[in-house]
Amino acid sequence: MNEDKLREMLQALQDGKTDVDAIVENLRSWPYEDLGFARVDHHRALRRGFPEVIFGEGKSADQITKIMEAMLSQGTNVLVTRVDAAKAKDVQKKINTAVYDDISRTMTVRQHEVSEKGRGLVLILAAGTSDIPVAEEAAVTAEMIGSRVERLFDVGVAGLHRLLDHFHQMREASVLVVVAGMEGALPSVVGGMVEKPIVAVPTSVGYGASFKGLAALMAMLNSCAPGIAVVNIDNGFGAGYLAALIDQG
Amino acid sequence: MNEDKLREMLQALQDGKTDVDAIVENLRSWPYEDLGFARVDHHRALRRGFPEVIFGEGKSADQITKIMEAMLSQGTNVLVTRVDAAKAKDVQKKINTAVYDDISRTMTVRQHEVSEKGRGLVLILAAGTSDIPVAEEAAVTAEMIGSRVERLFDVGVAGLHRLLDHFHQMREASVLVVVAGMEGALPSVVGGMVEKPIVAVPTSVGYGASFKGLAALMAMLNSCAPGIAVVNIDNGFGAGYLAALIDQG
Amino acid sequence: MNEDKLREMLQALQDGKTDVDAIVENLRSWPYEDLGFARVDHHRALRRGFPEVIFGEGKSADQITKIMEAMLSQGTNVLVTRVDAAKAKDVQKKINTAVYDDISRTMTVRQHEVSEKGRGLVLILAAGTSDIPVAEEAAVTAEMIGSRVERLFDVGVAGLHRLLDHFHQMREASVLVVVAGMEGALPSVVGGMVEKPIVAVPTSVGYGASFKGLAALMAMLNSCAPGIAVVNIDNGFGAGYLAALIDQG
Amino acid sequence: MNEDKLREMLQALQDGKTDVDAIVENLRSWPYEDLGFARVDHHRALRRGFPEVIFGEGKSADQITKIMEAMLSQGTNVLVTRVDAAKAKDVQKKINTAVYDDISRTMTVRQHEVSEKGRGLVLILAAGTSDIPVAEEAAVTAEMIGSRVERLFDVGVAGLHRLLDHFHQMREASVLVVVAGMEGALPSVVGGMVEKPIVAVPTSVGYGASFKGLAALMAMLNSCAPGIAVVNIDNGFGAGYLAALIDQG
Amino acid sequence: MNEDKLREMLQALQDGKTDVDAIVENLRSWPYEDLGFARVDHHRALRRGFPEVIFGEGKSADQITKIMEAMLSQGTNVLVTRVDAAKAKDVQKKINTAVYDDISRTMTVRQHEVSEKGRGLVLILAAGTSDIPVAEEAAVTAEMIGSRVERLFDVGVAGLHRLLDHFHQMREASVLVVVAGMEGALPSVVGGMVEKPIVAVPTSVGYGASFKGLAALMAMLNSCAPGIAVVNIDNGFGAGYLAALIDQG
Amino acid sequence: MNEDKLREMLQALQDGKTDVDAIVENLRSWPYEDLGFARVDHHRALRRGFPEVIFGEGKSADQITKIMEAMLSQGTNVLVTRVDAAKAKDVQKKINTAVYDDISRTMTVRQHEVSEKGRGLVLILAAGTSDIPVAEEAAVTAEMIGSRVERLFDVGVAGLHRLLDHFHQMREASVLVVVAGMEGALPSVVGGMVEKPIVAVPTSVGYGASFKGLAALMAMLNSCAPGIAVVNIDNGFGAGYLAALIDQG
Amino acid sequence: MNEDKLREMLQALQDGKTDVDAIVENLRSWPYEDLGFARVDHHRALRRGFPEVIFGEGKSADQITKIMEAMLSQGTNVLVTRVDAAKAKDVQKKINTAVYDDISRTMTVRQHEVSEKGRGLVLILAAGTSDIPVAEEAAVTAEMIGSRVERLFDVGVAGLHRLLDHFHQMREASVLVVVAGMEGALPSVVGGMVEKPIVAVPTSVGYGASFKGLAALMAMLNSCAPGIAVVNIDNGFGAGYLAALIDQG
Amino acid sequence: MNEDKLREMLQALQDGKTDVDAIVENLRSWPYEDLGFARVDHHRALRRGFPEVIFGEGKSADQITKIMEAMLSQGTNVLVTRVDAAKAKDVQKKINTAVYDDISRTMTVRQHEVSEKGRGLVLILAAGTSDIPVAEEAAVTAEMIGSRVERLFDVGVAGLHRLLDHFHQMREASVLVVVAGMEGALPSVVGGMVEKPIVAVPTSVGYGASFKGLAALMAMLNSCAPGIAVVNIDNGFGAGYLAALIDQG
Repeated sequence: MNEDKLREMLQALQDGKTDVDAIVENLRSWPYEDLGFARVDHHRALRRGFPEVIFGEGKSADQITKIMEAMLSQGTNVLVTRVDAAKAKDVQKKINTAVYDDISRTMTVRQHEVSEKGRGLVLILAAGTSDIPVAEEAAVTAEMIGSRVERLFDVGVAGLHRLLDHFHQMREASVLVVVAGMEGALPSVVGGMVEKPIVAVPTSVGYGASFKGLAALMAMLNSCAPGIAVVNIDNGFGAGYLAALIDQG
Repeated sequence: MNEDKLREMLQALQDGKTDVDAIVENLRSWPYEDLGFARVDHHRALRRGFPEVIFGEGKSADQITKIMEAMLSQGTNVLVTRVDAAKAKDVQKKINTAVYDDISRTMTVRQHEVSEKGRGLVLILAAGTSDIPVAEEAAVTAEMIGSRVERLFDVGVAGLHRLLDHFHQMREASVLVVVAGMEGALPSVVGGMVEKPIVAVPTSVGYGASFKGLAALMAMLNSCAPGIAVVNIDNGFGAGYLAALIDQG
Repeated sequence: MNEDKLREMLQALQDGKTDVDAIVENLRSWPYEDLGFARVDHHRALRRGFPEVIFGEGKSADQITKIMEAMLSQGTNVLVTRVDAAKAKDVQKKINTAVYDDISRTMTVRQHEVSEKGRGLVLILAAGTSDIPVAEEAAVTAEMIGSRVERLFDVGVAGLHRLLDHFHQMREASVLVVVAGMEGALPSVVGGMVEKPIVAVPTSVGYGASFKGLAALMAMLNSCAPGIAVVNIDNGFGAGYLAALIDQG
Repeated sequence: MNEDKLREMLQALQDGKTDVDAIVENLRSWPYEDLGFARVDHHRALRRGFPEVIFGEGKSADQITKIMEAMLSQGTNVLVTRVDAAKAKDVQKKINTAVYDDISRTMTVRQHEVSEKGRGLVLILAAGTSDIPVAEEAAVTAEMIGSRVERLFDVGVAGLHRLLDHFHQMREASVLVVVAGMEGALPSVVGGMVEKPIVAVPTSVGYGASFKGLAALMAMLNSCAPGIAVVNIDNGFGAGYLAALIDQG
Repeated sequence: MNEDKLREMLQALQDGKTDVDAIVENLRSWPYEDLGFARVDHHRALRRGFPEVIFGEGKSADQITKIMEAMLSQGTNVLVTRVDAAKAKDVQKKINTAVYDDISRTMTVRQHEVSEKGRGLVLILAAGTSDIPVAEEAAVTAEMIGSRVERLFDVGVAGLHRLLDHFHQMREASVLVVVAGMEGALPSVVGGMVEKPIVAVPTSVGYGASFKGLAALMAMLNSCAPGIAVVNIDNGFGAGYLAALIDQG
Repeated sequence: MNEDKLREMLQALQDGKTDVDAIVENLRSWPYEDLGFARVDHHRALRRGFPEVIFGEGKSADQITKIMEAMLSQGTNVLVTRVDAAKAKDVQKKINTAVYDDISRTMTVRQHEVSEKGRGLVLILAAGTSDIPVAEEAAVTAEMIGSRVERLFDVGVAGLHRLLDHFHQMREASVLVVVAGMEGALPSVVGGMVEKPIVAVPTSVGYGASFKGLAALMAMLNSCAPGIAVVNIDNGFGAGYLAALIDQG
Repeated sequence: MNEDKLREMLQALQDGKTDVDAIVENLRSWPYEDLGFARVDHHRALRRGFPEVIFGEGKSADQITKIMEAMLSQGTNVLVTRVDAAKAKDVQKKINTAVYDDISRTMTVRQHEVSEKGRGLVLILAAGTSDIPVAEEAAVTAEMIGSRVERLFDVGVAGLHRLLDHFHQMREASVLVVVAGMEGALPSVVGGMVEKPIVAVPTSVGYGASFKGLAALMAMLNSCAPGIAVVNIDNGFGAGYLAALIDQG
Repeated sequence: MNEDKLREMLQALQDGKTDVDAIVENLRSWPYEDLGFARVDHHRALRRGFPEVIFGEGKSADQITKIMEAMLSQGTNVLVTRVDAAKAKDVQKKINTAVYDDISRTMTVRQHEVSEKGRGLVLILAAGTSDIPVAEEAAVTAEMIGSRVERLFDVGVAGLHRLLDHFHQMREASVLVVVAGMEGALPSVVGGMVEKPIVAVPTSVGYGASFKGLAALMAMLNSCAPGIAVVNIDNGFGAGYLAALIDQG
């Protein structure tokens, strides 16, 4: 309808019934409802080769399937996060190209190759074995967006030598994702070793006064090492996405 | 510059060098940067006779004075909240039409009469005498916007009869602002008595486990009486503003 | 018994054994226990056509059925909130006029038509698809009370253009209910666009540092846009009820 | 052993081998380990006719049965709190005198009559129907200890008239137990009506920002009415016990 | 006006223009606004000899003086809590019968003797020397209301023998007020020693993870000993008041 | 590779192609990546006879079995914490030397005798019977590391005499582990009785305002008795481990 | 001493008294104490031209001066954060090349030119005028490290058009620092508009339920827009540092 | 009086008027009030050479002076914690042997030499320079009790090499006190390097989401390294005291 109104005005201009000044004035005063002509470039992600992402938690297998089918019909790659094995199985009955990874709990469909677009390396560290699912979610996400990813797991601060052994690899990264639960000390230690952007991910691993990841979150926000920023508890996807943005910036 | 570009296009249309379809297509694809033509109607408030509002806390007398002068030059009324007496005195040296109210800690300049625009009555209740400053901030705000305001103070739940005595007045209001600190029970009791929209304002009045108004805030959010919504702790301005909007809706 | 006592006194007056002054004095000093004569007008809601409301959570199908039957015998409409599908089914076996809506998780019985009594439009916005159940609870509630309701879902701040596209509709509303989880930013953005009363509803949608809706709740309470008040987390009913009160004020 | 040592000393005194001063000096310097002679009077409760109490939560039917049997063999009455129906059934197979109450979730065995020992009346108020289980736990506890108990349920502040109707009964009580969830306002209102000791019990009834009873707890602690003290969330037993102590003081 | 209306009706009855039934019916349907005839018995406290109480915090010396003068003119005793020395001095210039106690920070005026009305003894324990101001506020309050008070200070759980030394005194009390900061363990220990009503008062004494009394408050609410209820942090007045109510019940 | 580089250098030295100074200088400037030569002495624990420890929570029976088998092949003793009975059974099918203790929920394999290495006695106190599982986890841990352990359970502060009866035993210990839930007062009382290092363990035993052990944790951190430090909620393993370190220091 | 030991070994090799294998084996087993040879490359920052940074809060003017002098003697640039005007003045008496900026509260000394080393633009947004000091701290930090910085202030979500007007500028940035207090919604809105790495900085601007920035912090952590990570409340320095790292990566 | 009663009984025994059995029986039944004979050994600390300790915070110079004088008259050493410089000066006017240390804010009087009684070394680490006052309080405390103390300051995890450089010294300690604010990661890293008892002290150093030391406290409680226990925020005294107990155990 707004389009109709605009066409009417422009036609009047073409017909010599109004002038440029009047139309400019008119457009200037349009309130928000006319913003139909100023749309956000929502195809941007697709053109850059980014996958479409579905947050699977709280959605049924049926809902996920339908959203995926709609996306797949656009030719895009698809990443579904936070899917449990049972749901994944149900989805795969309909969409047999869907690949499920039971560690990261992600489901992916690759309709076209993901080309590496990053400047360097996204290095993903996990403090303990229980932090690996979150770390893998970050890894899968960054890979789907087109970054080269390496993993460095079980390098918690209580066994410092394991971390020190990989100093070289850490220096090679363009950005590090550091995943840790419990006391969340790993990003501080890593931040003291390399001068790279660090995306810290607190996990809900822990018990008692960990308060489901709050202890790790607070520790990471208070890190004495600069160059660190933090995402939500267990937000592997967010960390992987941001790391890929940094790597491809 | 965007205007220039638009004029260019429209001139081309007028000159017969392009057609309506092309221009519509062009406008449709404009990204956000062209939103210069889709401005929010920021003169709306002024035309409706609303005052300009300045949040005085953290601003110096000098800063407040300068902002007020700019606003006053537009012919609008002005309301400044959270001003202490010393600052007010300094401002008044420059702007001698400014009226300071040391209870609500507001400063107002009325360049034109505020006409009553509401459908009914904004009734403002305060549980204790210590809650009055916040209640007065709400009252002054609603009055400046053009609502009729009545005050009903010191009607806390521990002296229920004082509240019951004013049942008639409460039923006459179009909206009630209920201000209370400590256990914040007053909105629940009022909400059980009248079926009117209630804007509840927790105050930081209290000590110990009141945690600077948190107890009252939580109580109000959990009210067993329907028809109640809550604003931030000590936010008399917000409550008065919303109440006026409801009254004038 | 109080009635007996009152009758005795009045009889004495009629019999000329006492005078008006004595009785007035006597009544004046009656303590609370005589309040039997000053009952709240609890039929008010019914006469205005409001439905009776049952909070279904924690009640068995059997309990809900019995309360509903008692209410229905009064001829009133009935709204039950927070009922799961299984319970609803059990209730429907006994009360076959009960209609269950599995999105809002409400059950309604309409014994008489609900006439529109509002001045305008209650517009209900939901930020994400996961917020829809809460938004629908608000919508069903406002409709049952007699307000005209429109829905505007999936207009979260991360896709601002969808929100901007509906600016016109937002300006038409007499009151807006804005439902959002996660960071709870939507009410602030909406409050910056329209000068209408806004009832903000934080939802428990989110994870990690969302702390079951606390993050959204706190964000909404701290909104930089005036004209916003907040109800409890996931309290769609409360928001719809208040919105209808405002719309019908 | 300590006894042996003491006897040895005393024998020496009797035999004239030591004197009074030496023994007094010796006893004076005894550290704590000799406190075997200064035992707490742990039969006190039993003699006063108090029941033995078992906190049933987290204990198996088998564990509860064994503890009960041991207690019953002493001739005492027994009160078990926080027992679910299934566990109760299992216990009753072994102890067929056990009476289970599925509202208060208590199990009682009365081997002897409980005589009324209080000075007056323990009045137990509950704000909503969902608060009744906690209120009943308080009631059963106070009754088992020997107080006269009356119940006044569904008298929440949102329907003030129901509360006002029972003003007389409230004035008769020697102590009131006031049970409420959600915003926890009832004790404040009651405390403003009667000048009696009030034991306030917050319940976990509520949702969202009730935080499992925290809102009610904080409201009660901040009550503007004096004469109120608070027990733990859902602690009906503690409230009933304290009320009985006050009533029987 | 309500009175006018009532008189009119009664006159009609006296004049034989209406009958008893009609008036009863009429009164029965009066809504709240007619509650003027059902006033709370607000002289109750005065007749019982209770003092009037003023919460001095946040009030100026001038405000306190005026309220006191109004009260004193009624012949009542007066208790002012939370007054600092400077304010007290200013008040005393006007009211030279006012007695200031710089430990409890209370000011009292005794226009008539306070007669002992309790059944027994209010025993007030304080864990540490820093808790004494709060304990003294409780003591002064209970004394002003007419209870016999004894003090037992510096009996914290880290020096158990001091507490044990006073076991006899504790058993004589009709009610105990137990004041403690830091870990707030004292009420639990006392509750395990005597079977008396205990009013626990957490204080803000402590640092770090005491969070201004929150640690003590939470400990007291979770006491494993029954017979304990808790008032707000530092609320000596509330504890003394409740203790006196219990003692005089 | 670093090794290769080092060998090259050393070979050059041996061949007379470089000198000692040059190599020292070279090694001095090696960054972290060369730390392969500066490994932590990770066999330390084994040589001291410490068991390997597996945190069983969140691991499957299969995962636990595999880790245990790897450890057992090194000849070490193994301790698995937080294993439920079902998982333990599954593990025992493969590793029939594994002993499961269903109170502490630990599984142990002793391939060699644990010799007592401590200087004294690790005394483990538990306040209530519900705290015993955590206390037993501490006890089993300290025993596996080689300390002599005694248990003193059900000595909560509400029954002080039971604690006092064991004063002698408490004085004999070289370190005490004090386990308590609810109000967490036991460590303060114990700390006031003996001048020994105390490891306090809050447990999640409690309800309502216990907030899953937070109340006990905060109480212990604020203890007025010196000589106390605190581990995480329910962390029996950590307490037992630290106590053994202290005992064997 | 370790060096002595190493020299001894190497001398033995040179003398033919040992062989390469033996030395490699020896070095391999060196524990941490020999890490003197594996120092962190702490001159890294200096060589890259990074300034030395001093956190000024809690340090005296004298302490700051001494640390600055030591740093300046190394020829490096120096940045001091969180310095108030008075302290700055004192420092400038000794170090007259120090430049103080009273908005960002930073003090800088530039001994050599800062060359631009970034790939693009660090764009710094501030929601309100009160957020500008934190935003300026970020800006000054990024500039000192060598990034090109642009500022975009007063673009809060309550006046969306101001933000929309600068869409183009936002798309040009290589990384955005988004500073906001109160409800902290700005990063979500920005994150929905551009696909760039966003460093979100919550500020302590606000009152009541803002809890000194906690509301904004939680909102930012829960952002529904991907590509956002968060630093500590008011941590402008940390955000500027990280942004520069990303820009120069 | 109890003594009188005891003497009477014993005299009767000596006089042959009663027998041993009767007296034993009599003593056995004594309730707590007779505990005068079972006093805690409160001279224990003095005999072991421990200093008397005064918590100076909240006490006036005059109060501190009087307590010190009383203690000094017993010949004991005295340690006063949390004294500011002004107060210290005032005390020193009266007690000129008092030595004030303005870093640890302690005041000490040594009337007799403190002999070293520990088995080894108390090593005190501080992460940052701002943590030194707390660390020094721990150091002074442990030294006053008679332990050998070494300090290792400014060894935070962001500069790991400084920590690694002192590995040898850390292995020599019998117990480590690890002091850190902000993210509190240092104890975890130290705990992963040495197998010694670690007393972790969170400090209130930090800002924003540090919440005055809460972040560090929670991190330390959740440490992934075993052998760590935690004291209250800023509780240097408690840590030093416990460390000395462990060292001298």
